[in-house]
Amino acid sequence: MPVFNQHRVPDRIRTPEERPVTQVPASARPTRTEHDLLGDREVPAQAYYGVHTLRAVENFAITGRTLADCPDLINALAAIKQAAALANRELGLLDPTRTEAIVAACEEIRAGALHEQFVVDLIQGGAGTSTNMNANEVIANRALEILGHPRGAYEHLHPNEHVNMGQSTNDVYPTALKIAATGAIRQLIDAMAGLRASFAAKSTEFADILKMGRTQLQDAVPMTLGQEFGTYALMLREDEARLGEAALLIREINMGATAIGTGITAHPLYAALVCARLSEITGIPLETAEDLVEATQDCGAFVQLSGVLKRVAVKLSKTCNDLRLLSSGPRAGFNEINLPARQAGSSIMPGKVNPVIPEVVNQVAFEVIGNDVTITFAAEAGQLQLNAFEPIIAYSLFNSLTHLRAACITLDVHCVRGITANRERLRASVEQSIGIVTALNPYIGYRNATAVALEAHATGRGVYELVLEKGLMAKEQLDAVLQPDRLTRPQAFAAA
Amino acid sequence: MPVFNQHRVPDRIRTPEERPVTQVPASARPTRTEHDLLGDREVPAQAYYGVHTLRAVENFAITGRTLADCPDLINALAAIKQAAALANRELGLLDPTRTEAIVAACEEIRAGALHEQFVVDLIQGGAGTSTNMNANEVIANRALEILGHPRGAYEHLHPNEHVNMGQSTNDVYPTALKIAATGAIRQLIDAMAGLRASFAAKSTEFADILKMGRTQLQDAVPMTLGQEFGTYALMLREDEARLGEAALLIREINMGATAIGTGITAHPLYAALVCARLSEITGIPLETAEDLVEATQDCGAFVQLSGVLKRVAVKLSKTCNDLRLLSSGPRAGFNEINLPARQAGSSIMPGKVNPVIPEVVNQVAFEVIGNDVTITFAAEAGQLQLNAFEPIIAYSLFNSLTHLRAACITLDVHCVRGITANRERLRASVEQSIGIVTALNPYIGYRNATAVALEAHATGRGVYELVLEKGLMAKEQLDAVLQPDRLTRPQAFAAA
Amino acid sequence: MPVFNQHRVPDRIRTPEERPVTQVPASARPTRTEHDLLGDREVPAQAYYGVHTLRAVENFAITGRTLADCPDLINALAAIKQAAALANRELGLLDPTRTEAIVAACEEIRAGALHEQFVVDLIQGGAGTSTNMNANEVIANRALEILGHPRGAYEHLHPNEHVNMGQSTNDVYPTALKIAATGAIRQLIDAMAGLRASFAAKSTEFADILKMGRTQLQDAVPMTLGQEFGTYALMLREDEARLGEAALLIREINMGATAIGTGITAHPLYAALVCARLSEITGIPLETAEDLVEATQDCGAFVQLSGVLKRVAVKLSKTCNDLRLLSSGPRAGFNEINLPARQAGSSIMPGKVNPVIPEVVNQVAFEVIGNDVTITFAAEAGQLQLNAFEPIIAYSLFNSLTHLRAACITLDVHCVRGITANRERLRASVEQSIGIVTALNPYIGYRNATAVALEAHATGRGVYELVLEKGLMAKEQLDAVLQPDRLTRPQAFAAA
Amino acid sequence: MPVFNQHRVPDRIRTPEERPVTQVPASARPTRTEHDLLGDREVPAQAYYGVHTLRAVENFAITGRTLADCPDLINALAAIKQAAALANRELGLLDPTRTEAIVAACEEIRAGALHEQFVVDLIQGGAGTSTNMNANEVIANRALEILGHPRGAYEHLHPNEHVNMGQSTNDVYPTALKIAATGAIRQLIDAMAGLRASFAAKSTEFADILKMGRTQLQDAVPMTLGQEFGTYALMLREDEARLGEAALLIREINMGATAIGTGITAHPLYAALVCARLSEITGIPLETAEDLVEATQDCGAFVQLSGVLKRVAVKLSKTCNDLRLLSSGPRAGFNEINLPARQAGSSIMPGKVNPVIPEVVNQVAFEVIGNDVTITFAAEAGQLQLNAFEPIIAYSLFNSLTHLRAACITLDVHCVRGITANRERLRASVEQSIGIVTALNPYIGYRNATAVALEAHATGRGVYELVLEKGLMAKEQLDAVLQPDRLTRPQAFAAA
Repeated sequence: MPVFNQHRVPDRIRTPEERPVTQVPASARPTRTEHDLLGDREVPAQAYYGVHTLRAVENFAITGRTLADCPDLINALAAIKQAAALANRELGLLDPTRTEAIVAACEEIRAGALHEQFVVDLIQGGAGTSTNMNANEVIANRALEILGHPRGAYEHLHPNEHVNMGQSTNDVYPTALKIAATGAIRQLIDAMAGLRASFAAKSTEFADILKMGRTQLQDAVPMTLGQEFGTYALMLREDEARLGEAALLIREINMGATAIGTGITAHPLYAALVCARLSEITGIPLETAEDLVEATQDCGAFVQLSGVLKRVAVKLSKTCNDLRLLSSGPRAGFNEINLPARQAGSSIMPGKVNPVIPEVVNQVAFEVIGNDVTITFAAEAGQLQLNAFEPIIAYSLFNSLTHLRAACITLDVHCVRGITANRERLRASVEQSIGIVTALNPYIGYRNATAVALEAHATGRGVYELVLEKGLMAKEQLDAVLQPDRLTRPQAFAAA
Repeated sequence: MPVFNQHRVPDRIRTPEERPVTQVPASARPTRTEHDLLGDREVPAQAYYGVHTLRAVENFAITGRTLADCPDLINALAAIKQAAALANRELGLLDPTRTEAIVAACEEIRAGALHEQFVVDLIQGGAGTSTNMNANEVIANRALEILGHPRGAYEHLHPNEHVNMGQSTNDVYPTALKIAATGAIRQLIDAMAGLRASFAAKSTEFADILKMGRTQLQDAVPMTLGQEFGTYALMLREDEARLGEAALLIREINMGATAIGTGITAHPLYAALVCARLSEITGIPLETAEDLVEATQDCGAFVQLSGVLKRVAVKLSKTCNDLRLLSSGPRAGFNEINLPARQAGSSIMPGKVNPVIPEVVNQVAFEVIGNDVTITFAAEAGQLQLNAFEPIIAYSLFNSLTHLRAACITLDVHCVRGITANRERLRASVEQSIGIVTALNPYIGYRNATAVALEAHATGRGVYELVLEKGLMAKEQLDAVLQPDRLTRPQAFAAA
Repeated sequence: MPVFNQHRVPDRIRTPEERPVTQVPASARPTRTEHDLLGDREVPAQAYYGVHTLRAVENFAITGRTLADCPDLINALAAIKQAAALANRELGLLDPTRTEAIVAACEEIRAGALHEQFVVDLIQGGAGTSTNMNANEVIANRALEILGHPRGAYEHLHPNEHVNMGQSTNDVYPTALKIAATGAIRQLIDAMAGLRASFAAKSTEFADILKMGRTQLQDAVPMTLGQEFGTYALMLREDEARLGEAALLIREINMGATAIGTGITAHPLYAALVCARLSEITGIPLETAEDLVEATQDCGAFVQLSGVLKRVAVKLSKTCNDLRLLSSGPRAGFNEINLPARQAGSSIMPGKVNPVIPEVVNQVAFEVIGNDVTITFAAEAGQLQLNAFEPIIAYSLFNSLTHLRAACITLDVHCVRGITANRERLRASVEQSIGIVTALNPYIGYRNATAVALEAHATGRGVYELVLEKGLMAKEQLDAVLQPDRLTRPQAFAAA
Repeated sequence: MPVFNQHRVPDRIRTPEERPVTQVPASARPTRTEHDLLGDREVPAQAYYGVHTLRAVENFAITGRTLADCPDLINALAAIKQAAALANRELGLLDPTRTEAIVAACEEIRAGALHEQFVVDLIQGGAGTSTNMNANEVIANRALEILGHPRGAYEHLHPNEHVNMGQSTNDVYPTALKIAATGAIRQLIDAMAGLRASFAAKSTEFADILKMGRTQLQDAVPMTLGQEFGTYALMLREDEARLGEAALLIREINMGATAIGTGITAHPLYAALVCARLSEITGIPLETAEDLVEATQDCGAFVQLSGVLKRVAVKLSKTCNDLRLLSSGPRAGFNEINLPARQAGSSIMPGKVNPVIPEVVNQVAFEVIGNDVTITFAAEAGQLQLNAFEPIIAYSLFNSLTHLRAACITLDVHCVRGITANRERLRASVEQSIGIVTALNPYIGYRNATAVALEAHATGRGVYELVLEKGLMAKEQLDAVLQPDRLTRPQAFAAA
């Protein structure tokens, strides 16, 4: 729809006065008249949305990114409206005809239809009211159409009275966020599991490659490259578990709370019914929050979820920092592993190949960390019975979830699967190392070992020969202690 | 171009393996073969971009938002390429034919053409190399076309050898950011100035309305509503000045640095020439950074700019918090001012109108504050001669700049211009206040004034009558001191 | 000890050159000579710490806050050293005499002795090595003393060879953090439970006080003040549960990992033994981390714990924002509740009393949120087999934990327990409200209700009379629907 | 004073009920009775502070860090009180006797006396009122003593009526912050200048050492180690300049604003007079803010100052990251430079030396970045005519300023001055590099150069021999282009 195309270009925002004229040139586009508490407005005749949505589009021209960019949220809204209609039907509050029409419209939307009718900017004032209104209007008009009425004939089926029956933005919007986020978390966990599997495969592949471990970027003691890559796999597994726990926190929904949690206008049996229907429709075992007044104003679960996403980001970024460091060089760097070449690295330096995949993952991590601060600010700013700033929480949360998922897939497919090791260089680094002297601590003591290390460092000589020369250990014992496979795990030894 | 449409839906990211097949169905789309250091690839024949861009699109499927969403950045890149061609021509390094073709292509792009050919994701690895490559390829192919050659005939005019001559991503990309940001800062300052003018007009309109000032949400001492709104105007003026200063910091450009600032492959006279040409083309008085090695790795100016944007966001958010507080009610709140009604406030509560415009501005502010943390992380992560994370800095910075601008315009046009005051309520709050006792400090002392205040609070009686009853001041003097216009500015008085 | 007194004044830091002279005036203070890999140094003869500690004090003069300011951390270090000695004894690696002396020294320290000997700055380089060294040296010298040897006679009992046997800073330091944090979390949860009990008591006390709920600072629908305060209690209960979960994440300890997790120099049975002994000593059911290489470099649990602390801070801050808002006035504000007066509010405005207790809690919350960013940065900066930045993580985490605890106690005792309600004002706000029209939605519909609300707003008339006047509902039905106790919970009703 | 010793141990906070008993055991300590609006309280007879301070100590037991830990702030408060007394004297509002006593007391405090009487916690509610009250009381009691009256005899000289004459916390506190911060900024700039000089000296020392520059951790093109270190010096110089600019922003003071900026109770000539006297006393050319209502509520200058400190932190951290990277090894790392050994690096790995000084600087940088978020939160939370959260802004700002200063001095003296270079290794890295092929771009073209680079990488052969073998350049020309001193700066060349 060209009407909202301008929203695609956020840095070309017209002043709001200019817009209505552009949007509804009366001659070119037939319109219908709708009414709200501010008066009458012309709405494009073909639009499924109505006057509330139209005003919201005019009010919020911020990012150019609309609800249509977040299909999971639209689907969640449709699932809620469908569940509410069914619950109200069971309570005898909604007649079968309207119920069926609403359910049919919701199912179409959940199948992907009419998403382009969700035209409100994702960053919006009003605590999500415009999102809820947009959903109510699109569903009402599609239901009217199904019933054989023209769009806008709300006397037959009204967005607020029927589609929104027993609901308020204040319970619908956070519930929709939770359902959409649950799906996005699952997708993220899947992507993380894929990445984890690739790291685990590399861990197996590199299980016998000895290398020097490093602490504080200084040579430390030997380990295997397999141990190093196994760590990346295990970090992901732990993060997947933490994400799974955070997902449980958002299974508590708000339906039945209506305006502020007291359930005004809701039937006493409604909360349980709508939760049951919504669980069936979404396949998620939802529960009604214990105290709906508290649930209406509380964003704690979103803050915690974002905190866990930040944790994922931090560790993913650390992993990518490591990959870039281990593959640094090729000649003036660590040069221990090779990342697959994905593109020419420079417009000026011929033959240069850069670690572009880890780099893009680092940047997503930085974004997620910033989003967490945004979410924190928005959550803290809630006042009294409601947090009016849930739209920016949603916006930031979905960006974090989807970008992290893309980053995991990208890192997995474009990088980790193709990593190779420079075995000779890794082995040589252990053989030349001073750090193996640590293994001799139990035999020669920290003080003797320090003296050997200092001499090795000063003279460039090897630890092995110095220990023998000084008669600190017998050759057989020394050989035994320094067996490669003994250096990378605990060993029994007698008291010095 | 349907090829990249999937990028519009970030939560529907396909695994990278699926993508190539979808993207280049050999039968349906004629292709041309291009070559880079990784080998041959088929590029859509109609594409102006080439193999480097194609690989980048495959590598970075993160946000679905491409360079085309940031036209100012594309225009800045074209300006740089045009300036470089002219400088190289003057140095005798580029022949007139190629120069003219490159210049013509760049001017077309700066006029808005071919932006849809900038298809790389805004969040990308490689320090912006793919952005620079995308620009080089589009310009080269358009220039080839102008010269009568087919796309891809790089033997006649090469993206890296001719369009990128004397350049590196590492000088081009940050220079493009600075030019684009300069324009965006100007637009933001304009929007702030508009908002400021509206606040200033309200300050004049409300100059004679007496009200109680508040500290810590507790009644303090009288002021005028005009003083209150004047403050919002002045805050903006100061922030505009600070933004102007930050803009000066990004006038120092990197051209001539090439790969790491040493100027390898650049002619000694080139840096000055390209800076002069670029200043002419952009109309911005640019300067070459004092030390190009330092400039190549330094993101300090971006961090500082973001810090100033955060300052703007903080104060804008505080102002919106105030507007929401002052208009709270209508019956159980402060109810001092009325914000223009913009839309129905609730899907369930009839007649409710909410402060949706300040609320959306608050949310943009929270986003900007989060973006600042992202930028901080990215800047800190730079290593040695380059910061590889400038793309996320650019992404965050442009979001902050454009969203803040939209927020200022929105707040101005949809809210501030239409604010009205509830004069009676404001006046009554002063008349009933205990806080006016502060004005009597110089006459009756802090201790007596405290006693009067406590009694007024306990009994509900007025300060005026209590002071007279206790004989603390003569009626004439008391009347004089409590004259409304004397309460809102310093007054001469004799020692107590 | 005057030697380190200068550390108390962080803004009076002397240049490091000046310091050694001041610290060890050879004539005034007898010294002993100690040796390390950098050479010989004079240590104050009376000091229990040794050369490693001395160098660390000179190297890190940053905050003036030393390990002694964090007694829980010192006690945790002593518990670890005690457990390690016992485990090594059981493995036959440490003789009974040394074991007993080490255990005795550790028990003294855990009883509060020698804490002033922990003199290293809390913010330190070296991944906590100086903290571990400080503990090793103090324990060794106290153990030597117990054994009848002079301090520094390390040939009898050595800080690194005996006290540190089977250990590395890289397993000791994070384990100590986890143990100390576990205790601090418990104390915080206790303080939160106390605050929660006070909110719950107020919720009961205010259970029958009807008031207007607010969304987006605009009058919404009725609720009870008890419901409002019950929310604050419930938020705390949920946060306590989340903190409890985060505490479980830090029960996985690192002992046995030694340098990088491979367990070099550690006996294969050591990890399990030391974990068992440490659990006994601390009373915390600790577990050895599944993979010690991963555990050595992973700060995920600290990031997540900090994220939960941030969640607590966000909600506590929101609660305090509400308390300040509800008590605003007394005459030009909401004036719904009264916070206990704690101190004069102004040096100039007589009789002014401010909400100083919620304000200080807000500020602690802001600090905790900032600390979370610091911790995030430090965790992300870990490289390869170790995170060298755990000291700033510890510093920030303990500040967050202890300050939050102080804030909860302060809010509880100095504020919440003494809150009173302004019943008349609260009741009047409901009676005058327009928002009660929402309750009529199911009977008269959203459209009719909107019309009534608009007329009430425009004319200042009441909803009750307008509904009757328009004949929208019968008086009996209207009275029934608007019964106060029906307005604050869901109600059954028939279809409209 | 043992009364407040408990405040030294923040994790041992007693419940507030316990405290008063502990603090003023009536028998042991003689007391005097003071009165405020909450009633009578016993104050230790020897205390210079009074009842307002006493209540504040009881109310705010958060960090255990008191005003006494921030002597610059105390000195600034004394300077303000002195200036106000002089201004009031000139206006005839304060008699000469009291003026002289107040001035004398202030001068004593500014010379270092009575700082231990500033006992309120640095994190406090009340917008700094308790800080101002603490100063008023200490000065009043010392002035009373000077005049021969006992402490507490406020009928002769009153903390609020005379010491605080013409002032409010709301102008005094931010003005004191600005004066104290100005001094701290100067000290920080001095420390940065010292560090810069050391980097510059190293730049000169290393001017002729050729090395490989790196972008994205991959070998790029040659540069000198002198250029690398010169960059660190230049970054500091720019940051010093930015800090100097930020310091100018806080020269605008608030004196004369009194409660909310309207100047209530202040004489019309007072603002200018007090500013002039304060400039004389402090030696800082202060100015009265243009609009005092705006200045009273605006924290923008603090936000911006913190933003610049964050910029300093970011670049300092980046520099330290580089130092750690360049000195990584010694055998399995870059090993290009050597940092001076400062302490043994490991309790278990003999001979290991770690980059502990850069590491501690990194951590301070992370703290400063977190403090910036805290300050941002606090600034945004200001409401209407005042920001009540300036104490946490002050706390965070002074921590950032003083810790950054300590970090700069530490890095300078303990690290940079002693850095040495591994010349042979650096030279060899250039000779073996593939990256020098970039210098041939203007002669053989990007495509040929790419082919050479790929072959060099695949075969391990050198660029030099391959170019000759392929006949791409004549030996003389190649030798000329690859002259070391030509590789690190722009060179003239003819068109290819």
